[in-house]
Amino acid sequence: MASVPAFAPRRDEPVFARLAIIGIGLIGSSIARAAKELNLAGTIVLADRDAAVRQRARELDLGHAIAETAAEAAVDADHVILCVPVGACGEVAAEIASELKSGAILSDVGSVKGSVVDAVSPHLPEGVSFVPAHPVAGTENSGPDAGFPSLFLNRWCILTPPEGTDPSAIAKTRQFWEGMGALVEVMSAQHHDLVLAVTSHLPHLIAYNIVGTAEDLEAVTQSEVIKFSAGGFRDFTRIAASDPTMWRDVFLHNKEAVLEMLGRFNEDLALLTRAIRYGDGETLHKHFTRTRAIRRGIVALGQEKPETEKLRKD
Amino acid sequence: MASVPAFAPRRDEPVFARLAIIGIGLIGSSIARAAKELNLAGTIVLADRDAAVRQRARELDLGHAIAETAAEAAVDADHVILCVPVGACGEVAAEIASELKSGAILSDVGSVKGSVVDAVSPHLPEGVSFVPAHPVAGTENSGPDAGFPSLFLNRWCILTPPEGTDPSAIAKTRQFWEGMGALVEVMSAQHHDLVLAVTSHLPHLIAYNIVGTAEDLEAVTQSEVIKFSAGGFRDFTRIAASDPTMWRDVFLHNKEAVLEMLGRFNEDLALLTRAIRYGDGETLHKHFTRTRAIRRGIVALGQEKPETEKLRKD
Repeated sequence: MASVPAFAPRRDEPVFARLAIIGIGLIGSSIARAAKELNLAGTIVLADRDAAVRQRARELDLGHAIAETAAEAAVDADHVILCVPVGACGEVAAEIASELKSGAILSDVGSVKGSVVDAVSPHLPEGVSFVPAHPVAGTENSGPDAGFPSLFLNRWCILTPPEGTDPSAIAKTRQFWEGMGALVEVMSAQHHDLVLAVTSHLPHLIAYNIVGTAEDLEAVTQSEVIKFSAGGFRDFTRIAASDPTMWRDVFLHNKEAVLEMLGRFNEDLALLTRAIRYGDGETLHKHFTRTRAIRRGIVALGQEKPETEKLRKD
Repeated sequence: MASVPAFAPRRDEPVFARLAIIGIGLIGSSIARAAKELNLAGTIVLADRDAAVRQRARELDLGHAIAETAAEAAVDADHVILCVPVGACGEVAAEIASELKSGAILSDVGSVKGSVVDAVSPHLPEGVSFVPAHPVAGTENSGPDAGFPSLFLNRWCILTPPEGTDPSAIAKTRQFWEGMGALVEVMSAQHHDLVLAVTSHLPHLIAYNIVGTAEDLEAVTQSEVIKFSAGGFRDFTRIAASDPTMWRDVFLHNKEAVLEMLGRFNEDLALLTRAIRYGDGETLHKHFTRTRAIRRGIVALGQEKPETEKLRKD
């Protein structure tokens, strides 16, 4: 990697002497790659409960060492990041708790924060800080091969430290994510779960749902759906190709916020459905006009290029 | 444009001596650019009912002439393409009917075909063929500036000629779209409307709806929605930024098929909602796993690159 120009400044001094990454999927392997390339940690140890994944991580030369167990990886680590599905965080925290040294910072990358805080906090030893993190970045691909070091570049990472968390632990965690090129924001776990319910969880559920609906049709074949997907459907299929286990856990663990958003979504959809049924073009046009504003905000913020620009590149 | 290498082979002989394009938006201006660049028509005349758009088309040097009215543009044309919202096709057909010469081929680019056939057919003069076309291509942008000549390259264009249409008119229309790099498929208007209801119309409605839902929240600000849109929401905003008039007409004119698909979508969503409410992780995981298959089909067909490839390019 030394010959490849870094996508972000390489640090002279690492943020953490020893970093442990538990779970070597898309996110875990991307952190390992970024941290190594940018010198964010002196030693990087990874662990995964799947032996085949550990083997692949060795072949990919991720980090500096691959541990056999999460507990082994956590020994003497200054920063431990749980990169496992949301539903597994509590269990892994319990498993590594006795190995965490005083002063260590425990973190995670889950897409739901309230339930992770609830599940992890009881296992937290004295002297260890918990700074939950959620990098709002990803692709449709999973596994150790899917990761790449610039995954977090210019993407938001939300930290949701519980009240009373040591400010220096928050500052170090921020420094680490900013070191990978991320933009860091701090908010409460509860607010995070509400924001993400609408910007991420509901869109995923809707995408999974519509792709399922399309698969079940009798009058339209699957090959036709695939062929003519450029009309809008294609974008939904990318979202609906995300990791099933991760997303199952997201919905089970952010249930209240997702159900609340789903309720609102359904009410609004009933209104549009009614407008279509009764030929109310004015209601449709009004609705379709006001939704353009949010898009302009996203393009203006540089979180996305306008589509023509991307098309022209092809 | 002569100095830019063509994205598709330039023809020695044009397909049509005289081409008329009625409506100079994203699609109309893209056809004008492609047809001129690739020599698909000897003379290209454009018309638009909006004087400011006609003026802009002159500044952009689109085609060879800008007519004041649709009727004027249609005079002596071998191929006339209606590039107006679906709901305006009948009216424009009535307006130009008396100017259409015998042997001319009338076409359109509407996203709904059944209602366009119904609206246009009564106005069709003796000796004029109607070959409805739907290029399944577009961007979030509208207007004469948004067009570009390679918009149709490797995109499907569906022709839905009514029974009894002169086969040579169908062949010429196919030749024209293939000349712009499109892949052409022929099917009935009714089947088209069903296929597109699921691959395009329903996704657009859902996207418009979810963006509207997000805008109305009190607990989450619009700026937060914009900031953290990378989690999935962003893709919906692109779709929900499409032209409001075009989409109003699509829903009003493909009402039955869209309502049918909406019904199925709602039934499926009720099932997923119930699984979330009762913590049925198995149902969720099963559903999220089978939706990956369609995505693989789309990537395999080359209609879309896997996401990581796109990200790595940035």
